[in-house]
Amino acid sequence: MATGRRSPTLESVAAASGVSRQTVSNVINAPDRVAPPTRARVQSAIESLNYSPNRMARSLRTRASRAIGFCVPPAVPNRLNPVLDRFVHAIADAASARGFHVLLFTAPAGPAGLDGYAELMAQQAVDGFALSETVVNDERQAWLMERGIPFVAFGRTWNDDDSGAWVDVDGAAGVAAAVDHVHGLGHRRIAFLGWPRGSGVGDDRLGGYLAACERLGVPSLVARGTESMAEGHAMASRLLGGPEPPTALVCVSDTVALGALRAVARRNLAPGRDVAVVGFDDTPFAALPGFELTSLSQPIEEAGRTVVRMLLKHLERKGSRRGEAHEPGEPPATNVLLRPTLVIRSSTDPEASRLAR
Amino acid sequence: MATGRRSPTLESVAAASGVSRQTVSNVINAPDRVAPPTRARVQSAIESLNYSPNRMARSLRTRASRAIGFCVPPAVPNRLNPVLDRFVHAIADAASARGFHVLLFTAPAGPAGLDGYAELMAQQAVDGFALSETVVNDERQAWLMERGIPFVAFGRTWNDDDSGAWVDVDGAAGVAAAVDHVHGLGHRRIAFLGWPRGSGVGDDRLGGYLAACERLGVPSLVARGTESMAEGHAMASRLLGGPEPPTALVCVSDTVALGALRAVARRNLAPGRDVAVVGFDDTPFAALPGFELTSLSQPIEEAGRTVVRMLLKHLERKGSRRGEAHEPGEPPATNVLLRPTLVIRSSTDPEASRLAR
Repeated sequence: MATGRRSPTLESVAAASGVSRQTVSNVINAPDRVAPPTRARVQSAIESLNYSPNRMARSLRTRASRAIGFCVPPAVPNRLNPVLDRFVHAIADAASARGFHVLLFTAPAGPAGLDGYAELMAQQAVDGFALSETVVNDERQAWLMERGIPFVAFGRTWNDDDSGAWVDVDGAAGVAAAVDHVHGLGHRRIAFLGWPRGSGVGDDRLGGYLAACERLGVPSLVARGTESMAEGHAMASRLLGGPEPPTALVCVSDTVALGALRAVARRNLAPGRDVAVVGFDDTPFAALPGFELTSLSQPIEEAGRTVVRMLLKHLERKGSRRGEAHEPGEPPATNVLLRPTLVIRSSTDPEASRLAR
Repeated sequence: MATGRRSPTLESVAAASGVSRQTVSNVINAPDRVAPPTRARVQSAIESLNYSPNRMARSLRTRASRAIGFCVPPAVPNRLNPVLDRFVHAIADAASARGFHVLLFTAPAGPAGLDGYAELMAQQAVDGFALSETVVNDERQAWLMERGIPFVAFGRTWNDDDSGAWVDVDGAAGVAAAVDHVHGLGHRRIAFLGWPRGSGVGDDRLGGYLAACERLGVPSLVARGTESMAEGHAMASRLLGGPEPPTALVCVSDTVALGALRAVARRNLAPGRDVAVVGFDDTPFAALPGFELTSLSQPIEEAGRTVVRMLLKHLERKGSRRGEAHEPGEPPATNVLLRPTLVIRSSTDPEASRLAR
């Protein structure tokens, strides 16, 4: 798609077909007024230049597309991203309820993918964007803000400077609630199985753990590994085989926690009775019989609704001052931090789980 | 959304603002040619009538939107639909590779939702549709064909009459391959755990089982229950506690199979050694340690690519005979039936699984 070239205009179509702008406009809007040979010449110029008459609508500065763009990260076959998939459903539902649609597109990660956003705006295919899979120092936000392109992100950039409107889930508060939960059950040697340093989400969750340990006056014990069951298994095995093994493993994700659960079982320890295990995300795996993993559930549907509501409010503000649309320097947006909910199952509390059945 | 009312036209905007059609067109395409007070009057009429200038582009009959509509079924919180989610990724990827986008929308099930499709076409928001979640006697196909709206379905309607273009996965062939697999391992009492009669997908899979049993000369034994682990557990328990218990349970889905696996374990039988269990869909659950469920993997990415390719070919055909676009009675489409792959794990063959590690 021609992102680098200049977009064809009414003028260039007129020049290419040797007629006036008005005639081109007539071909588009009132073709019966134009003699068939002229009409054919103009239509052929429109096609060869790949001119999109939708672009004309730009001057109106109405929100004609009523669509929200959402970039889908490349699918990894047989690897689920339940949080992302729930979020896509959530914004599609929320947008539909407001008479909007969600336009999915794909783009390379990093700066290379940014042209795709600008192009969709130029084509008036979308009115703005919902972002997700935000990373530390994400470049998209600043790039979109500079161009006055409306967006709301699901997830922070963890930058110090203003990075636009976002909705996020308070991972630190969630992990702190998990630590409080196992502490309340009597655990005092509580370890955290986290991701490598430098991921915004992982560091946020770790921060909640460290703060809770300090508040409760218990020692902290942190292991780090990548996002996989194998690493969860390895981290848990190492800690459980150490000199002062923890009795509770608070994990940065369900995937890591499922690996930890297996390490507990391999040592003939009973999850929930001997060693408590907590995950994060409350994926469908967590609820499976045989795992019954206590986990933190993210309010994804609420996040989707909030992202759509904030974005539509932003678009309304833009719409109310037509002439100045697309100018940089939007007022700093209100950001929303949602609380995850701890779903207690038998991996921390066999009694709670039994009662729930 | 005003599906019942007549759409505003250039004429109605002209009438409402007391100017000519040409002046309305000028306000949209060349606002600098129109005196500010007139421009303001026309813009106010455009807004109060909710007139979308994109609709003007209709007369051009070019494919301006380059978007494929896809209706997302309502999300059920904490219930995954991995096949659907993979399909959404697959069509987004395949469409992007061809310079198209996927427009997600939601619509009520049944005839009530059909207006949403027509409206998106009328708005030129999409060029055609990808359908999924097709059901027996699905009404969408006939409705879309009558209106000449391009679509390709992922899934059949199981109607006798022509129901338009589709891509589907051969469930019967997949289940037959599963029966052959357990038969080859020596099993002779092979049961099928299916869904209630009347679902196209479920009956198709059952048909493959019955045909394979007949071909192999082994008795058939069918249980039916709804799509849940609890029903899978109940069906398997009933069969395993019967007079001539089966030694292999071929299941209509992974969910049913996970319930069956638990029923096997509850009777202190070893899955894979004592009783073979096969699922369908190869969901991420199947690969989990502790389950290691043999299952049939659907080629979803290939299905998505094929749906997009067929739809774009359809659009090209339409585009090449401009004047007659949207006429009913498209030529019968070629349909594509893809083969699922049996992924063998320890629930049928402990050796195979061990070697794979």
